[in-house]
Amino acid sequence: MQVQGKNYRTIWLDENNENVYIIDQRFLPHRFVIEEISTVDQMVVAIKDMHLRGAGLLGAAAGYGIFLAAKEAAPTGDFENVLNISAKRICEARPTAVNPEWAVKRQMQAISQANSIEEKIKTSFKTAELIADEDAECCRMIGRNGFSLLKQIAETKKGKTLNILTHCNAGWLAFVDYGSATAPIYEAFSEGIDLHVWVDETRPRNQGASLTAWELLNQQIPHTIITDNAGGYLMQQGMVDLVITGADRVTRQGDAANKIGTYLKALAAKDNNVPFYVALPSSTFDWNMRDGVKEIPIEQRDPAEIKFVSGLNDGEIKEVLITPADSAAANYGFDITPSRLINGLITERGICKANENDILNLFPEKMQPA
Amino acid sequence: MQVQGKNYRTIWLDENNENVYIIDQRFLPHRFVIEEISTVDQMVVAIKDMHLRGAGLLGAAAGYGIFLAAKEAAPTGDFENVLNISAKRICEARPTAVNPEWAVKRQMQAISQANSIEEKIKTSFKTAELIADEDAECCRMIGRNGFSLLKQIAETKKGKTLNILTHCNAGWLAFVDYGSATAPIYEAFSEGIDLHVWVDETRPRNQGASLTAWELLNQQIPHTIITDNAGGYLMQQGMVDLVITGADRVTRQGDAANKIGTYLKALAAKDNNVPFYVALPSSTFDWNMRDGVKEIPIEQRDPAEIKFVSGLNDGEIKEVLITPADSAAANYGFDITPSRLINGLITERGICKANENDILNLFPEKMQPA
Repeated sequence: MQVQGKNYRTIWLDENNENVYIIDQRFLPHRFVIEEISTVDQMVVAIKDMHLRGAGLLGAAAGYGIFLAAKEAAPTGDFENVLNISAKRICEARPTAVNPEWAVKRQMQAISQANSIEEKIKTSFKTAELIADEDAECCRMIGRNGFSLLKQIAETKKGKTLNILTHCNAGWLAFVDYGSATAPIYEAFSEGIDLHVWVDETRPRNQGASLTAWELLNQQIPHTIITDNAGGYLMQQGMVDLVITGADRVTRQGDAANKIGTYLKALAAKDNNVPFYVALPSSTFDWNMRDGVKEIPIEQRDPAEIKFVSGLNDGEIKEVLITPADSAAANYGFDITPSRLINGLITERGICKANENDILNLFPEKMQPA
Repeated sequence: MQVQGKNYRTIWLDENNENVYIIDQRFLPHRFVIEEISTVDQMVVAIKDMHLRGAGLLGAAAGYGIFLAAKEAAPTGDFENVLNISAKRICEARPTAVNPEWAVKRQMQAISQANSIEEKIKTSFKTAELIADEDAECCRMIGRNGFSLLKQIAETKKGKTLNILTHCNAGWLAFVDYGSATAPIYEAFSEGIDLHVWVDETRPRNQGASLTAWELLNQQIPHTIITDNAGGYLMQQGMVDLVITGADRVTRQGDAANKIGTYLKALAAKDNNVPFYVALPSSTFDWNMRDGVKEIPIEQRDPAEIKFVSGLNDGEIKEVLITPADSAAANYGFDITPSRLINGLITERGICKANENDILNLFPEKMQPA
């Protein structure tokens, strides 16, 4: 998508296919910083410390991470072991997300089928590129499929602006390109639909206020940033026509783990008859889980993310303490939106209801859990 | 309540009963600043710019504001007119709150019954003190009445810690003393109940993270600050036994206007069978309204409160920009929690269900709207 009028992906290789480049998202929206990543160590730090984040991008980063891992393992004389250790570290850098594990598994399987170490490295390169390209293509298709939904709701507005609310950043910055929740918005906007986006700021890391808003600005799409507290009121007042969020993990029965606070918006949408949709590439499904509330592990992050807020002051990015220094804080990263609160899932294959039967109608090859 | 081991109210007169003193809450939790207020102008600024805030304290401040107004009106030779203009300015400084209007009305009625201007000033002084004392006494009684509820729920915990979630600051800083939502907590804690408070940070102004946490720290009550997004997850996981919030306005049928985001917590409480209570002195009832969602006006505040976050950096209070400079933001101050989501109202007369019948059983004198 566009950054200051120029097209970018969120992750790419240099001309010689050696080093990985990413947009270091910690500096957005204030500075546009590109980071070079040449080692597994750097990739693990980038994933863990959220230089990059988001379901699809984490998958692509893990894919490229295994490519770096294969190159590092080659000269050690203990290729299998060294690669396995790196693979484990990459998976464990963000335990709630399913995509790194998925990408690593896919890489390991592909690599295992190559014979020489040279072949294995070549395979890991090709697989990494494939994972990234497929992610972008998935999101493009989510955009097409979601567009039909937006068009349909827009038609009921009879010339009035279509108001969409989104939580966190399930934008192109969370994927390789286009995004999941944003893809239908970008598609609908480019097709001329009159729309406006309510952007939840998404505490504690403010990915809505910093990333989604920045994306929409660069795409020149009308948007308004609100606190995470505000969505319920907007829905009570009829100021939201549709909620679209992304997901970090969706179970077979359609329960969605997503950024903390998503569940609260789904409750408000239900209470006010506002359609609530989750957009995801199928790699985000966890086919081995059913009950999201009981089964999905929720990551607890550093309380400092709550106690300190980062932003621009006098041209510099600074952190300010917003609590008493001696108060405790707890930082749960995600919550679970039960499928009963979700009107539908927007995937690259189409839109389906959030229940096992309808999901498997779109993905019949997953009839048996892996 | 306690500040560094010393007892304070949030508003008081100097020894000569001339000037008003308040805790300037804008500097909390980082600095404890006392402000002297000698004019109506200063009081209007203090109310409008939230040097002080909260239902009961706004009422007391309006009461003392009319005392200052009466003193200012005396030498003008146009007592009635000048007083009326000040009264209007005080009421309009925070349009969503019902307490300033209530306090001003009470003052104006009392003053109208005094004969000389000297008598009128004396009456306005007495009435201001009475409003403050009654507010404190109301909150003390809310504490006693709420305590019986907390005790009852604590007994079901069989020795485990009682977990209470609260939103915003309905603490003693929002009243003259004790608070509404916090009064039962302070009472239960002093009665030896093992409890812990989840404190919603309460964006955009972070009154939970800055004020409620600061109160609880000074009272040495165990507490943990969370984002506004987190409460739903905590309830899903059985980590909340009770929600208590305050209110800015409650209708005859029990709909409650409170800090934006309260409605979302009430929805989550309902969805997880967690009792949700609203604590309020009866001055917060608006006996002229029934349907809160349709009738209560919601204040829109400065978008800068969303775009900038204030906190401590390098020993100084600084503001940081957390959004793209060019993105729009909207700042709705309150939402409405419909009575169907409220298990009960904790008032100075006792606890009742949130419906017109049960409310009027406690306040039979309000059978006819004013």
